[in-house]
Amino acid sequence: MPLVSSIRRAAVWACALAWAACAVAQAPALPSWNDGEPRMRIVEFVRAVSDPKGKDFVAPADRIAVFDNDGTLWAEQPLYFQALFMLDQVKAAAPGHPEWQQNPAFKALAAQDQAALEKLGMKPVLELLAQANSGMTVGEYDATIRNWLASARHPKFKRPYTDLTYLPMRELLDYLRANGFSTFIVSGGSVEFMRPWAEKAYGIPPEQVIGSQQEVKFDVKDGKPVLTREARFAFVDDGPGKPVGIYRHIGKRPIFAFGNSDGDFQMLQVTTAGEGRRLALIVHHDDAQREFAYDRQSHIGKLDKALDAAPANHWVVVSMNKDWKKVFAFQQ
Amino acid sequence: MPLVSSIRRAAVWACALAWAACAVAQAPALPSWNDGEPRMRIVEFVRAVSDPKGKDFVAPADRIAVFDNDGTLWAEQPLYFQALFMLDQVKAAAPGHPEWQQNPAFKALAAQDQAALEKLGMKPVLELLAQANSGMTVGEYDATIRNWLASARHPKFKRPYTDLTYLPMRELLDYLRANGFSTFIVSGGSVEFMRPWAEKAYGIPPEQVIGSQQEVKFDVKDGKPVLTREARFAFVDDGPGKPVGIYRHIGKRPIFAFGNSDGDFQMLQVTTAGEGRRLALIVHHDDAQREFAYDRQSHIGKLDKALDAAPANHWVVVSMNKDWKKVFAFQQ
Repeated sequence: MPLVSSIRRAAVWACALAWAACAVAQAPALPSWNDGEPRMRIVEFVRAVSDPKGKDFVAPADRIAVFDNDGTLWAEQPLYFQALFMLDQVKAAAPGHPEWQQNPAFKALAAQDQAALEKLGMKPVLELLAQANSGMTVGEYDATIRNWLASARHPKFKRPYTDLTYLPMRELLDYLRANGFSTFIVSGGSVEFMRPWAEKAYGIPPEQVIGSQQEVKFDVKDGKPVLTREARFAFVDDGPGKPVGIYRHIGKRPIFAFGNSDGDFQMLQVTTAGEGRRLALIVHHDDAQREFAYDRQSHIGKLDKALDAAPANHWVVVSMNKDWKKVFAFQQ
Repeated sequence: MPLVSSIRRAAVWACALAWAACAVAQAPALPSWNDGEPRMRIVEFVRAVSDPKGKDFVAPADRIAVFDNDGTLWAEQPLYFQALFMLDQVKAAAPGHPEWQQNPAFKALAAQDQAALEKLGMKPVLELLAQANSGMTVGEYDATIRNWLASARHPKFKRPYTDLTYLPMRELLDYLRANGFSTFIVSGGSVEFMRPWAEKAYGIPPEQVIGSQQEVKFDVKDGKPVLTREARFAFVDDGPGKPVGIYRHIGKRPIFAFGNSDGDFQMLQVTTAGEGRRLALIVHHDDAQREFAYDRQSHIGKLDKALDAAPANHWVVVSMNKDWKKVFAFQQ
């Protein structure tokens, strides 16, 4: 058997056993990204930290990448998708809570009174939501989320919400993992709301989803151990909560972070304050035609302080309009 | 080149690229375990859930194994090692807390008055401990732990505490991972106390360590983002807290659990209450010569209810004395 054929056979064996390594070699990098500064900076960063002979080399175990979810990996307008789900839950739970008829937050929700809701702030709304689904076991709650996701449609795109993940970001997640990174979601949304679909959509398993957490309680019902949801939050993973969530869950400082709003400010800050090579990026929603255009004045995904802080911190601002060839996979 | 030689060459390539898979084939299973029921049950369980054609097959992503730490992966007598560390910290912090001189818990600790400590319970002691290290950044705390571990010696074995991990359990962790399992620690101890050494000792990275959590707060000091420890616990990962910690952190029900005390009862219960094939085991400390002998009457690692519940739940009780050829790697 000639040498070339022998090597080829060896390569087949190797690929069969080490398919991950072979996938790395074959995957084209970030095909839905235009050739601009963001794509260049990402590729150069990944090359630098993966080069075992380079001064910026980072061992795979420390190649931690964190991603906000709402507005970074999928859309978040006209309202966080989880909030839309929760509003449906509040409506469904209302008959069991006659006292809500006197609750200002419920009245504003029922009347879709945006001005009143802004004046009230998030707290009374979150309290209603927590009450709406307390007492459920975590399994029942999971089923409720899956059912909603299967039937609900986005008001603008008329598609399931899980179709509204950003194709360039999914490519980026794959690209980072193919280069030895671990990819985590670090979201203000609840872990329970993301876990049922994050693995299929992003390749991110439940144990790599960090988010806000409602209190749950262990109990034994009919001889079976169950976890039941309680009417309060154990942890809010937003703003200054994000570095706390990362510390608690990962215990390492990320070297790569991607966000899109002021709620990601501290996560980006902690990431780039570390020693050695770091990269942080921000999605700028400036594409009213293919998605939405919003930043400083938006009530959802407000991007103001972080946009001002980006140049001095060398955070890369990614223009959805200029840097992405495609936004969603279903778009031509 | 004859076929055999060509296959051999292919195997070398394959091993170079897929060393993990090859390691599986070569590693002898659990050499420090005697041939008894526990070893047999473990090997048979792993075979059953890994066989893609078998009725008990479990996809690798769902092969979640959880381990208690104190008394399961390393020793816990005469007192939890973290408690010994914390006592040293309380002593060191005492000059800054003159009010402690009137505190019953501090007086009992200083006098090593075991009877008074038992009467007081853990709460006032934990409060002292939380105060002792609050205000530190998480980085400073990490350094304190590493320094202590480097210098402190166990009173009986006169060795660093990190030498007191159980060899058969380290083999078991390797064996499970070689068969596609993810291995997590789920401990009543603090994550911060375990993370600095768990990866080297057990091959378990920081993001797979679940434990009790002291509250931390994000802050910016001298222009740098820092996390500072606060004087209260955010979460106690013990007893009914363990299934909560598992749910929050992993989001999947484990198929394999290993504990040693009543504090692991609910973790074992949740694991074996799931559908499909499951395995739960308990280390029984019945080896006064090589380690310690204690169970129902012990104040540390009390094993009483779980020992009674084991037969009906098919939990396997592992006798340290009979089932382990060696306890610690340093023993002959």
